[in-house]
Amino acid sequence: MMKNVLIMMICMGSIWVSSCGNNSSNDRIAMTMEDRINEKGPVMGLGEPVTSNFTGEAWLKMLSSQSEYDCNIYNVTFAPGTRNNWHSHAVGQILLCTEGVGYYQEKGKPAQRLTAGDVVNIPANTVHWHGAAPDSRFTHIGITPKVSENSAEWAEIVTDQEYAEAVQ
Amino acid sequence: MMKNVLIMMICMGSIWVSSCGNNSSNDRIAMTMEDRINEKGPVMGLGEPVTSNFTGEAWLKMLSSQSEYDCNIYNVTFAPGTRNNWHSHAVGQILLCTEGVGYYQEKGKPAQRLTAGDVVNIPANTVHWHGAAPDSRFTHIGITPKVSENSAEWAEIVTDQEYAEAVQ
Repeated sequence: MMKNVLIMMICMGSIWVSSCGNNSSNDRIAMTMEDRINEKGPVMGLGEPVTSNFTGEAWLKMLSSQSEYDCNIYNVTFAPGTRNNWHSHAVGQILLCTEGVGYYQEKGKPAQRLTAGDVVNIPANTVHWHGAAPDSRFTHIGITPKVSENSAEWAEIVTDQEYAEAVQ
Repeated sequence: MMKNVLIMMICMGSIWVSSCGNNSSNDRIAMTMEDRINEKGPVMGLGEPVTSNFTGEAWLKMLSSQSEYDCNIYNVTFAPGTRNNWHSHAVGQILLCTEGVGYYQEKGKPAQRLTAGDVVNIPANTVHWHGAAPDSRFTHIGITPKVSENSAEWAEIVTDQEYAEAVQ
């Protein structure tokens, strides 16, 4: 009888360990950045790696781009330290920050620190960049209204020095 | 010795219950729906109660509505069982589902079950409703492009029978 109770308690202990425990640190070290983001990923999905106009790793997922709406909606995820180049939009762009910590900076102004729930209304023809904090990944939904008249103009990279000064 | 081992195992069982368990049901009953939603709320915020065109409790938070974008962006949270009336948009509307479980139904078609990460492109002049599942709250970001030509036309409520058939 005592033996049976003991076995039952050991089983309960095992359930506790398996239901509440995390993976070992060895498992985590073996994962790529993309694996880690997918593990508990952005709610709207990660998408595909961005290949130009960014410094660092970033992923883009198009969410809606129907011509009748003349409005593009997409999810952007930045690895820690990643930012896009200086650029501007002819009409502007809206950012909805959903996860992590990031920054938005207009040329000649201090950077704004962004966290989940923040909204940025980027004005027309205003040179700026956005990206992740050095120690956090960052995800925002981006919305480009009036696509047919809202071209983006991409310029030089945000240098390591510009980035370091912005996020200090 | 056997007694000590038994005591240790009982303690482990208690840790398991306290670390994985929920609050007691009495605590939760004392909270309003709004309290419960604010406790672990929508990432873009809850906003203010919606007062018309809905059956049940819902909250609306405007996120961006600048005239130069001609595009409104807002967060809608539906309590379980809540849905909006049958309605249509002259250009259409985009829904980005961020939390919980909901439904979208176009008149005369089966309802679509929605979960976090789903996107709905609602076509122009198409009568439909959206709302929460009976047993889950539901949050979506809504985007109204081309606001200046995209008026909404609101019609009759979604009856309890229509709702029950849609979500069965």
